[in-house]
Amino acid sequence: MTIKIGIMGYGNLGKGVYSAIKQNPDMELVAVFTRRPKNSIKIQEDAKIVSVDDAKEYVDKIDVMILCGGSATDLPVQGPEFAKLFNTVDSFDTHAKIPEYFEEVDLVAKSNGHTSAISIGWDPGLFSINRMVSEAILPDGKEYTFWGSGVSQGHSDAIRRISGVKNGIQYTIPLDGAINRVRSGDDPNLETKEKHLRVCYVVLEEGVDKNKVEKEIKEMPNYFLDYTTEVNFITEDELKLNHSGMPHGGFVIRSGKTGFNKENKHIVEFSLKLDSNPEFTASILVAYARAVFKMNKEGHFGAKTVFDISLGHLSPKSSEELRKNLL
Amino acid sequence: MTIKIGIMGYGNLGKGVYSAIKQNPDMELVAVFTRRPKNSIKIQEDAKIVSVDDAKEYVDKIDVMILCGGSATDLPVQGPEFAKLFNTVDSFDTHAKIPEYFEEVDLVAKSNGHTSAISIGWDPGLFSINRMVSEAILPDGKEYTFWGSGVSQGHSDAIRRISGVKNGIQYTIPLDGAINRVRSGDDPNLETKEKHLRVCYVVLEEGVDKNKVEKEIKEMPNYFLDYTTEVNFITEDELKLNHSGMPHGGFVIRSGKTGFNKENKHIVEFSLKLDSNPEFTASILVAYARAVFKMNKEGHFGAKTVFDISLGHLSPKSSEELRKNLL
Repeated sequence: MTIKIGIMGYGNLGKGVYSAIKQNPDMELVAVFTRRPKNSIKIQEDAKIVSVDDAKEYVDKIDVMILCGGSATDLPVQGPEFAKLFNTVDSFDTHAKIPEYFEEVDLVAKSNGHTSAISIGWDPGLFSINRMVSEAILPDGKEYTFWGSGVSQGHSDAIRRISGVKNGIQYTIPLDGAINRVRSGDDPNLETKEKHLRVCYVVLEEGVDKNKVEKEIKEMPNYFLDYTTEVNFITEDELKLNHSGMPHGGFVIRSGKTGFNKENKHIVEFSLKLDSNPEFTASILVAYARAVFKMNKEGHFGAKTVFDISLGHLSPKSSEELRKNLL
Repeated sequence: MTIKIGIMGYGNLGKGVYSAIKQNPDMELVAVFTRRPKNSIKIQEDAKIVSVDDAKEYVDKIDVMILCGGSATDLPVQGPEFAKLFNTVDSFDTHAKIPEYFEEVDLVAKSNGHTSAISIGWDPGLFSINRMVSEAILPDGKEYTFWGSGVSQGHSDAIRRISGVKNGIQYTIPLDGAINRVRSGDDPNLETKEKHLRVCYVVLEEGVDKNKVEKEIKEMPNYFLDYTTEVNFITEDELKLNHSGMPHGGFVIRSGKTGFNKENKHIVEFSLKLDSNPEFTASILVAYARAVFKMNKEGHFGAKTVFDISLGHLSPKSSEELRKNLL
């Protein structure tokens, strides 16, 4: 018996989910659901593609639907909608709106006997786990999150909106000097801009003034103004050749003190170095789909976050096996 | 309302638990229980000391009893015994005997309506969590655990048993070269001895032959023979001055591949750098005491490991607060 998975949306994340399912013998892809014309989807190997309008016909054929849409417009609609029909997993990552989104999905999931894991991934997700656990263990301490090296979609979009820019990409680079100060237990006060460098690779339209574009990028409020920003001009070919991967990663570091006189210092660090952000995120979604499947069988209905799910549920191994071999 | 804690056993770990309780305003120490004569216990500040024989009088006064004894002889007896009377947390770390210990404590805890978190700490504990979760996310991968730099009690004891040795301490040092190969995604095959160096500081009795002792250490089977071992001779004063701390730490690193052709590589790393092994372990026990308290109120009885406990239970914050501020 395998866990039957549906994928809603087949962008980079959906593709990553499909390839992750293939790495997990206890799982099986039933179908990919899409709002696009079915024949517009290029899909690896032999997978079934179904129009989203026919999703309700799959209610009894799918154990968990993994929602692979974006947080801006897709998930706020799809999350509650699909929680009516299926157990779900999503990667909703608009931090400020999580409480509201949780309540909406929770209500629908509970009243339909479904289980929905929301905001799954690495941030929110694994990074949140590490922030929360290390704070609970070392209450007298300081927490630092560094992102990168990796592509920031929002900042890349901001560059591409500038007139005269044909294409571009922005990497967020964590600064070694800042990381080392944190690791040494220095407890520095650091703002995001003191922890990260922004490096841009920009392709210009013909005849556009480099200096003007560079100035416009570096002075863009919120995005670049407060940061050390490096702007490089390259050709479209170079962009395709060297910047089409989607690497990412980051660090969560907590330093804390213990002892009657707070005389002892401890550093807890969690870090990720990812060749492909969407594939790694997808692999997390798939592990949480397993947890959702188990929790639903156990009668735990409603919306769940990484804080509500006991970790053994992520593994295909039994509790006995986990105790014997992984504890 | 605070969570009322008892401490069973007042060695280094018990002391660490007391100081950790003081860092958590939602907790309160009721009493320290001991098998030793009560007046032999030196205790920081004003804590109540009670003979272990009177523990049952505290059944209604204590929410969670933290067992701070050793795994060799104390916990196998105390674990089941105290699970009859109290919710408990312990740091049972004899890996091979965990399944059996779990069953024993589970039976007693369940039939008495108690909750018992067993094998809590950093290894087993936080390291187990990271091994298990990263394996579930990246099934196609390889996992490495490095220990240290830190004091190995077992190896220090082995040195001290050698005739002519007055005192001694052994540090396990993870080898940077091996760590860097793993971090680079090389996936090397490494045995424990290829990952660690053993460094000994030895104080000799007067007139003892250095070379003879050094040879005896380096050729000791199981402990040192297969390792690169460094032996340093120092004075008792130097030992006291430079080697009375209890630092420890280590790394859990998983490298794994994703993608239809396994073309993308990911490195997940968790590391600890601890000034005081017992104080950090104690801080974990205290956070899990909070989880045990909450789970017992929710009606989750029996033995639990780090795999069975949802992480939000470790925090003094409410689920709403966690979603809002830590996700």
